[in-house]
Amino acid sequence: MARDVAVLVGSLRKEAFSRKLALALAELAAPALHFEIIEIGHLPLYNQDEDKNPPPAWVAFRERVRKADAVLFATPEYNRSVPGGLKNAIDVGSRPYGQNVFDGKPGAVISISPGAVGGFGANHHLRQSLVFLNVLPLQQPEAYIGGAGQLFDAAGKIANPSTREFLTKFIAAFAAWIEKNAT
Amino acid sequence: MARDVAVLVGSLRKEAFSRKLALALAELAAPALHFEIIEIGHLPLYNQDEDKNPPPAWVAFRERVRKADAVLFATPEYNRSVPGGLKNAIDVGSRPYGQNVFDGKPGAVISISPGAVGGFGANHHLRQSLVFLNVLPLQQPEAYIGGAGQLFDAAGKIANPSTREFLTKFIAAFAAWIEKNAT
Amino acid sequence: MARDVAVLVGSLRKEAFSRKLALALAELAAPALHFEIIEIGHLPLYNQDEDKNPPPAWVAFRERVRKADAVLFATPEYNRSVPGGLKNAIDVGSRPYGQNVFDGKPGAVISISPGAVGGFGANHHLRQSLVFLNVLPLQQPEAYIGGAGQLFDAAGKIANPSTREFLTKFIAAFAAWIEKNAT
Amino acid sequence: MARDVAVLVGSLRKEAFSRKLALALAELAAPALHFEIIEIGHLPLYNQDEDKNPPPAWVAFRERVRKADAVLFATPEYNRSVPGGLKNAIDVGSRPYGQNVFDGKPGAVISISPGAVGGFGANHHLRQSLVFLNVLPLQQPEAYIGGAGQLFDAAGKIANPSTREFLTKFIAAFAAWIEKNAT
Repeated sequence: MARDVAVLVGSLRKEAFSRKLALALAELAAPALHFEIIEIGHLPLYNQDEDKNPPPAWVAFRERVRKADAVLFATPEYNRSVPGGLKNAIDVGSRPYGQNVFDGKPGAVISISPGAVGGFGANHHLRQSLVFLNVLPLQQPEAYIGGAGQLFDAAGKIANPSTREFLTKFIAAFAAWIEKNAT
Repeated sequence: MARDVAVLVGSLRKEAFSRKLALALAELAAPALHFEIIEIGHLPLYNQDEDKNPPPAWVAFRERVRKADAVLFATPEYNRSVPGGLKNAIDVGSRPYGQNVFDGKPGAVISISPGAVGGFGANHHLRQSLVFLNVLPLQQPEAYIGGAGQLFDAAGKIANPSTREFLTKFIAAFAAWIEKNAT
Repeated sequence: MARDVAVLVGSLRKEAFSRKLALALAELAAPALHFEIIEIGHLPLYNQDEDKNPPPAWVAFRERVRKADAVLFATPEYNRSVPGGLKNAIDVGSRPYGQNVFDGKPGAVISISPGAVGGFGANHHLRQSLVFLNVLPLQQPEAYIGGAGQLFDAAGKIANPSTREFLTKFIAAFAAWIEKNAT
Repeated sequence: MARDVAVLVGSLRKEAFSRKLALALAELAAPALHFEIIEIGHLPLYNQDEDKNPPPAWVAFRERVRKADAVLFATPEYNRSVPGGLKNAIDVGSRPYGQNVFDGKPGAVISISPGAVGGFGANHHLRQSLVFLNVLPLQQPEAYIGGAGQLFDAAGKIANPSTREFLTKFIAAFAAWIEKNAT
């Protein structure tokens, strides 16, 4: 069955590894999974005072995520945690209280870093937020992708066969998780 | 000795409990501690592409924090973690790589929530970032302030004597920690 | 359908609040959910050297958990994290590598403390382990139970109607989650 | 000045990487730092009921740690967190309430794993406990040691020059932190 997956990318730079990774995952997924990166870099910082008259960018973001069947977070680690821009998108999508657009959706987290650790801190801090958001998380396989600088070829494909194999497995597990949990 | 404490407030709404708490702490502190709330709500989301030609708001924020002797984080919890706006300020202040303006400063964290839990999740996620930032953290007393709705009187003072006593003790411990660790 | 729920209790003292809470939850659950507290206080500390010739207590524990349909963790917080005894039981159950007895089971976490915070730190540290264990976690409602000292009447029942209502809701959500995910 | 550093090792197996790492660090440290591994594998699981009449092993452990000037934690990661045996030692040392033997000591954390990630999850969960214990943590450099299987030569020395250099820098930073904070 066709599934609409909202993808949130943690880094805002144009050539971000996390963006490339999201695009590579979209290619590796079964055709029934439709990935779309939902942009977050233009969202004003969340401020409860503006919920009475919310910025149009918040409204559009919330509506877009709400209609998705599932959500994928692809993110680097900033200061051992989730980048502020991605956390802000999560905050925008979860308010006003009682109108959390992520509620009940199956979700997955993949983190990426230039170094060896693969964004573990961002990955698990994000998972802690997913509890409150009531996003149903794919648990296994966990995905911490290190060595981001050597990961992609010139066309943005995954250069390394073993990583490509792992990502294929990851995205297939996510597809099965979505089928089980999408409403 | 006079000490300049940069205060970062996690909520952007005008009547934020975390802002009131920061102001109340400033009043309870010894005169030698000069608290100043450094505004963060206008900081554009961090994007590495802009480090070549950074927004003036980033530059001003970085310069202001750099000259502080210490840093205090007063924050609510959003989605079991640090609000995106506060995390963004941390990200802005820690980049470009090698120019982390928080480096080596003594710091303290106080979290606040309307409910009973007192922002535990935000408090400790923030502490995980402090490791990377090389902020030297006050460990005890920990400060999780619950029941924010009943905390302040009409003038913004701490209404409850036992909470006022706790906060006085907290800020005195922070003052001693600053004296020991400020450079 | 009848379901066998293995309950791991984080505190080893006889009158532990977490044990009382587990027993109270068993009473509030639908009859189809069969709760059994699996004792962990006698398990020798995990040591990989002994996996060749494992202590009988490890073997019996592993076999008992393996046949459960689901797992419930009821725990206090020790030093802002999971009690060592409970963590040891998790470590014993997850080894040797490739023989994780928790794998794929639906699970839930409830934390309890005498103070207001309700064991948030233990709750979420435990959830981080569940990712590796591939336990499928109930996300909502989260359960942080504060004020443990006033929670139970002399017969060990939940004295407070609003808490009893919350726990009834919690255990019903867990029952539904088990039905969806048990294999 | 001579300093007594209590070293707690997270793995109980005889040939544990974390034990070898602790021994290698002792060799790299300045002569004034006296490292001693305090054994924890024989400590009965913490149970508050036994605090009235504590097992001799608890008493001896508490007394030994109490007289140390500083504490070093060298640990693998079990199930994305601190091994149960190490957490148990922390629990034993922190009780009864008000008699926390770690209180106020400078401390450092080093984590190690066979894989690339280097025990990030154990490292930071342990740091969360240090807040409650009032251990003053070395923040930088952080130490996540991956590739444990290739780290040591036959004599147990660090085989890799760049790792040896990093560990020398780590232990020198810890020595300076101890001098600043030991009482």
